[in-house]
Amino acid sequence: MTMTTTVRLNGVGAAPGLAIGQAVWWRKERPVVETRSISDTEQETRRLEQAVSQAKEQLSRLREVTAERMGEGEAGIFDAHLSFLDDPAYVGEMKNRIQQQKKNAESICSAVTDEMSQMLASLPDEYMQARADDIRDVGDRLLLLLSGKQPFDPSLLQPGSVVVAEELAPSDTAQFPPGIAAMITARGSKTAHAAIMARTLGIPAVLGLGKAIEQVQDGDTIIADGEAGWIDLNPDAETQAKAEKEMKRQQELRDQALQKAGEDAVTQDGKRIQIFANIGSLNDVETALNNGAEGVGLFRTEFLYLENDHWPTEEEQYQTYRKVLEAFDGRPVIIRTLDIGGDKDLPYAELPKEENPFLGHRAIRFCLANKDIFKTQLRALLRAGVYGDLWIMFPMVENVSEVKEAKALLEECRQELHKEGVQTAEQLKVGIMVEVPAAAVTADLLAKEVDFMSIGTNDLTQYTLAADRGNEAVAHLYDAAHPAVLRLVRQTCDAGQKAGIPVGMCGELAGDPKMTEVLVGLGLVELSMSAGTIPEVKEQVRGVNSTDARELADHALTRENPDEVRTVAAKGK
Amino acid sequence: MTMTTTVRLNGVGAAPGLAIGQAVWWRKERPVVETRSISDTEQETRRLEQAVSQAKEQLSRLREVTAERMGEGEAGIFDAHLSFLDDPAYVGEMKNRIQQQKKNAESICSAVTDEMSQMLASLPDEYMQARADDIRDVGDRLLLLLSGKQPFDPSLLQPGSVVVAEELAPSDTAQFPPGIAAMITARGSKTAHAAIMARTLGIPAVLGLGKAIEQVQDGDTIIADGEAGWIDLNPDAETQAKAEKEMKRQQELRDQALQKAGEDAVTQDGKRIQIFANIGSLNDVETALNNGAEGVGLFRTEFLYLENDHWPTEEEQYQTYRKVLEAFDGRPVIIRTLDIGGDKDLPYAELPKEENPFLGHRAIRFCLANKDIFKTQLRALLRAGVYGDLWIMFPMVENVSEVKEAKALLEECRQELHKEGVQTAEQLKVGIMVEVPAAAVTADLLAKEVDFMSIGTNDLTQYTLAADRGNEAVAHLYDAAHPAVLRLVRQTCDAGQKAGIPVGMCGELAGDPKMTEVLVGLGLVELSMSAGTIPEVKEQVRGVNSTDARELADHALTRENPDEVRTVAAKGK
Repeated sequence: MTMTTTVRLNGVGAAPGLAIGQAVWWRKERPVVETRSISDTEQETRRLEQAVSQAKEQLSRLREVTAERMGEGEAGIFDAHLSFLDDPAYVGEMKNRIQQQKKNAESICSAVTDEMSQMLASLPDEYMQARADDIRDVGDRLLLLLSGKQPFDPSLLQPGSVVVAEELAPSDTAQFPPGIAAMITARGSKTAHAAIMARTLGIPAVLGLGKAIEQVQDGDTIIADGEAGWIDLNPDAETQAKAEKEMKRQQELRDQALQKAGEDAVTQDGKRIQIFANIGSLNDVETALNNGAEGVGLFRTEFLYLENDHWPTEEEQYQTYRKVLEAFDGRPVIIRTLDIGGDKDLPYAELPKEENPFLGHRAIRFCLANKDIFKTQLRALLRAGVYGDLWIMFPMVENVSEVKEAKALLEECRQELHKEGVQTAEQLKVGIMVEVPAAAVTADLLAKEVDFMSIGTNDLTQYTLAADRGNEAVAHLYDAAHPAVLRLVRQTCDAGQKAGIPVGMCGELAGDPKMTEVLVGLGLVELSMSAGTIPEVKEQVRGVNSTDARELADHALTRENPDEVRTVAAKGK
Repeated sequence: MTMTTTVRLNGVGAAPGLAIGQAVWWRKERPVVETRSISDTEQETRRLEQAVSQAKEQLSRLREVTAERMGEGEAGIFDAHLSFLDDPAYVGEMKNRIQQQKKNAESICSAVTDEMSQMLASLPDEYMQARADDIRDVGDRLLLLLSGKQPFDPSLLQPGSVVVAEELAPSDTAQFPPGIAAMITARGSKTAHAAIMARTLGIPAVLGLGKAIEQVQDGDTIIADGEAGWIDLNPDAETQAKAEKEMKRQQELRDQALQKAGEDAVTQDGKRIQIFANIGSLNDVETALNNGAEGVGLFRTEFLYLENDHWPTEEEQYQTYRKVLEAFDGRPVIIRTLDIGGDKDLPYAELPKEENPFLGHRAIRFCLANKDIFKTQLRALLRAGVYGDLWIMFPMVENVSEVKEAKALLEECRQELHKEGVQTAEQLKVGIMVEVPAAAVTADLLAKEVDFMSIGTNDLTQYTLAADRGNEAVAHLYDAAHPAVLRLVRQTCDAGQKAGIPVGMCGELAGDPKMTEVLVGLGLVELSMSAGTIPEVKEQVRGVNSTDARELADHALTRENPDEVRTVAAKGK
């Protein structure tokens, strides 16, 4: 018997769960790009076209395999990849530049990919930022194909493998065969698309381990805690036995939650909390329903604007909204109007660059200043609302006048449609997203004007704490569990209750099962989250007593900082 | 008698007051810069040196005239100009580039000026942003001198002139002979340095009139309302008579206020409100005292860091702080610790560029992460505190732990100094700036840890409303009179009162005489502002009954938007 000393490495817990397995490095060929001048632009364009067509074949195959193994929802990511390859702003732009600049396809592909991914990364929504990873992924695939290289073969991964990598792209995780125990990487954060995929797949993930990850060798035994964010490298027998016992316990809890995903979430004292899903496109609908979503708490409509090379028409929008409403078959669907702003480079719009885009000309501000664009969306919504229970939500509202103006425009659209003889939703709800601190602070005034309010904790947190959630230097400050944020949540809930309208939450905090009791105690009646966390949050709700929860929340509101709040939240259970 | 029709043009009211006068265009030579290659770099360097030395002469003369006419405070701006000409990062950098790039001095001067002014414009404090105008002004002077041209001769301006210009630099306004009636420009905002100068000089200013200003011709009669932000071009007799009557009334009020500037500001029911000055350097001290400042409510220390080519030493800082404390002779001096952040290009520091600098690694965040830099300042403050009533204020605080950590560092510095046998302030107050919404929302928790709180409305407003105050696209939303901001002010005052500590305000709102009654009603006990507005605000306080003020404030808190609040505030008088 040899003595082993367990080595613990700390990273970022990006997808929860405990796992044990054998390390396998994901050997990824990185394309090396050289810039050459070329004379035959026709030939170079053909080379690019060939690579694009090969990439489409690979991606279609990946899509098929993924749909089979993980469902349509997860396969949807490859539709996004494929649509980039049909996007005139992407491949079309590359062809133009080959003609104009007379440079090799690799250098042009690399430049255009960089520009588009930077554009996407600048968007204020983490969902959109993940698109930046997607396009980089597509670009890498094109570059590999142009250089004649082959990607890593995922069939090398046995069940029980812990995938080890510098960084993983969404198309990498999508190729994982069934039975992967965990994934660990040197780079990456909680909001990386790979992290979102891992959460969806239910694979524990520890990201951001840094250079220390180089100690890991193929075949090493690894315990990964995707919750706490650490790995144990070659653990001793005792450590391993303890981990195995804990894993078993957690699995039982998960099974229990999944079995009851279709049932309502009711507290022990009989208070029902509605659990909704956040979705970004039609592709997310199936997964949401399968995980027990009782409605949509946030449908981000930005995709319609970003995946097109023109402002989406009323008809294009109408078709999409209608499909989502029909899929949810009479259950509430909250559709957020366009949340995009003046800092963005929509290829077809001229939006000026801003110094502090998160404090800029975005969302309802942009829409009220661009009424034609706004009215097109409102008309599409009014028409689609005929086919379900539509709730329209205005983002970034900061005063009552904005709500009145937006509602007047909605009414104007309704009148126009009626004059045109077009049918509109007879009943629909109009609400606001509470994400600007001013909205929470004056929630009592706003509540009088709307049918519902939904708290967007991601933005509310970054404004309330003055900490950009994309900025690593202030990442230690950015935490929605800050007592100030929770106080604003409470204040908004109280205002809603007084006005007799429901207050929900659709930021990331809503999907954190460890905060569920506190959130119920703050007075929220609806929580909306990524589909994957719905079963667990429902199960959490079922364990809550709402009087205890209120006391717990009251106590949390008096804590000094987010860490203390989280400690209180953990103890409350 | 000819019929005349008054033409009204609307702009931005940048310095209050009503005036009538004759238009005189400020004909400003704009330097045209061409880029040439040169071979004799020595000769080109001599050309630059000659221009620099002529510029120094002109600026020293301007400084002298200004000191005589407007006092040392206003003359200080030319010290800033002169110091740029001694700055190795400015003129030194130009010389280097002439050697390296072998280009003419004009093109090099223009490039270096642009870079430095952009760096300064990116700073989060409007005081610092005004420095960007300063350096552009110095650069233009150098470029004119290099091209052998002469600037506009201000002796052409008769008393009663209304100066008309595309844009005015601080060095332009500083050259105004006595008796200028008003200034009006096509470009510029409330925070432009020219606007600040105009407010200091008491010259009504209407900026941002746009292309319409081209209708104005030399000799036209103009009524300018620097409060409301309009001008009447060639008014009819009746309009003019009305304006003259109103001017007379306003002048009487101002005279009354100035006469009583040295007296305390006490409400009609005997409640004293302390009126302090915001200062940015030693140069501002005299003006502050002359206008009746009872202390310093905000001493911005950034200047010490920006005017140097190295982190300012403990001794350099100590000397400055001590001088300010001595000048105020036992009256309270609130010194704010360094408010600078990760987005800045301090020439001697490597600070990374940030996507949303206002939500970034700034102020106390930066200081707690750079303890050496912070401790140097804290040591200098502890030493200087011996010479007056020092209040240390930490900016951008968002949770209690930050305050505890900063206080621990302060104590550590005190211990170190004692061990070294250095004398430190026996009594000093430690407080925070309430400018992050989280701080206002949790003011009750923070109040337990500090001796005072001061509300910085500029930042508090932009975070609470999620509206960058430098972004024109959201300028219509940025207004500190928003009910949400006022509610946070009230909440902070209440928390201070409960904890038995004073709560003041040092943002721009504090210096707005039309809001004085509301601010008193919210519970503020100290207001700090630009020196020029002190007499008027004191006079406003004297007219207030604090019970009425509280009712007025209560009513304001229920309004829908800032415009309604301002209407309520105006009616209250």
